[in-house]
Amino acid sequence: MLSKNRLKLIRQLSQKKFRQEKNLFVAEGEKVVHELLDSGWRANQIYTTDPLKNIPHTLVDQSELKKISNLSSVSSIIGVFHLPKYEFSYVNKGLSVALDSIADPGNLGTIIRLCDWFGIKNLFCSPNTVDCFNPKVVQSTMGSIARVQCHYVELLTLIDKCETKVYAATLDGSSLYKESFPTDGLLLMGSESHGINNELLAEIENRITIPTHSGGRGPESLNVASATAILLGEIFRSRAI
Amino acid sequence: MLSKNRLKLIRQLSQKKFRQEKNLFVAEGEKVVHELLDSGWRANQIYTTDPLKNIPHTLVDQSELKKISNLSSVSSIIGVFHLPKYEFSYVNKGLSVALDSIADPGNLGTIIRLCDWFGIKNLFCSPNTVDCFNPKVVQSTMGSIARVQCHYVELLTLIDKCETKVYAATLDGSSLYKESFPTDGLLLMGSESHGINNELLAEIENRITIPTHSGGRGPESLNVASATAILLGEIFRSRAI
Repeated sequence: MLSKNRLKLIRQLSQKKFRQEKNLFVAEGEKVVHELLDSGWRANQIYTTDPLKNIPHTLVDQSELKKISNLSSVSSIIGVFHLPKYEFSYVNKGLSVALDSIADPGNLGTIIRLCDWFGIKNLFCSPNTVDCFNPKVVQSTMGSIARVQCHYVELLTLIDKCETKVYAATLDGSSLYKESFPTDGLLLMGSESHGINNELLAEIENRITIPTHSGGRGPESLNVASATAILLGEIFRSRAI
Repeated sequence: MLSKNRLKLIRQLSQKKFRQEKNLFVAEGEKVVHELLDSGWRANQIYTTDPLKNIPHTLVDQSELKKISNLSSVSSIIGVFHLPKYEFSYVNKGLSVALDSIADPGNLGTIIRLCDWFGIKNLFCSPNTVDCFNPKVVQSTMGSIARVQCHYVELLTLIDKCETKVYAATLDGSSLYKESFPTDGLLLMGSESHGINNELLAEIENRITIPTHSGGRGPESLNVASATAILLGEIFRSRAI
């Protein structure tokens, strides 16, 4: 059974300020909850309609789950987890991705999955990027949130301290296909509508662009998750061959 | 002013059966509506809060637009357009994309935009793929629906009649980076959860896969729109250099 207090708490956790105050977040759906548990994330409480083996949980019925669900089709399990404490370094080996002002939860979730696919461990986000523990982001990562660490930092500081080559995805750069990407690097993406902040851009020499083939009649830009997918596909090309 | 009858009609158009019966669909938001108008699509009626020059329209107030909007944040313009009559050929020059059983409107919309970016004119969809004139799809194409033709066809017939090389994106194919893609071709994508239908797969020799770098600990698959982005980025690589 779900007490009134727990119900209130879980609903509050859809807001960032309460997640930070309580140090908790909510994950929903079998895939996400089990990936978090399997990756050793600490659960505060698991609510499920089906008993779980070897995992402490509270049995609830479907109507109770519906009250705390953020999804249109309610799943059979919801977990309240402790927020992780990530340690991070501005100086990273391998490839990292940085996001400037990404507001859409679905885009952030998709980019977290892409990072996971390409084995990227660190994703840096500007402080105004949507919180990665927003329930919609957690959901759309399909479990990848368990493996990719999102660090909310001032990107100017990151670029300043970063010792690797930094690439900015813009609409006026050189073709990404002409670049040979080093093993260590930082790829900076901006939002589709606003691009990368000018103050940041001024600090970056290497600007890369995905060539369009629409003959000038197509879209002016690509969705940031699509652009990230294409860029990572190309950056990891030489590592796969 | 919006009459009761028009209000009812516009609401009905969120359903495929009414779109087909009335031969109309709804597009919302300045960008989409203007891209359709600029591309010569025939409007049945335009509802707007701001007068338009040289375009017949009906002035409405924000509260009326809200009643017919499918979006959470209502835009200032909604257009009712006639469905297009596309002629198509199973035999296509250049690259085409085919989608098997894609249910998510956002994924279809993103793929239509990607096609537009890469100058792909024809997108073939299995009959059970979400309708491209679903309001959520139209919205998420951000206007690209005006330039990419979606044809709903039996994909087995398409593959049978298609004279170009056909590539299927699967999880067990050869690395996409090792393939040299010809100028003419068909790329077949399946849904993330179900992949490509076995009957279709049996007809296709060339299976390609996006290599993962997660060391076996990452996601089992990529979202279909992300996968399409990476594949198109690689296919168009040689044409851009």
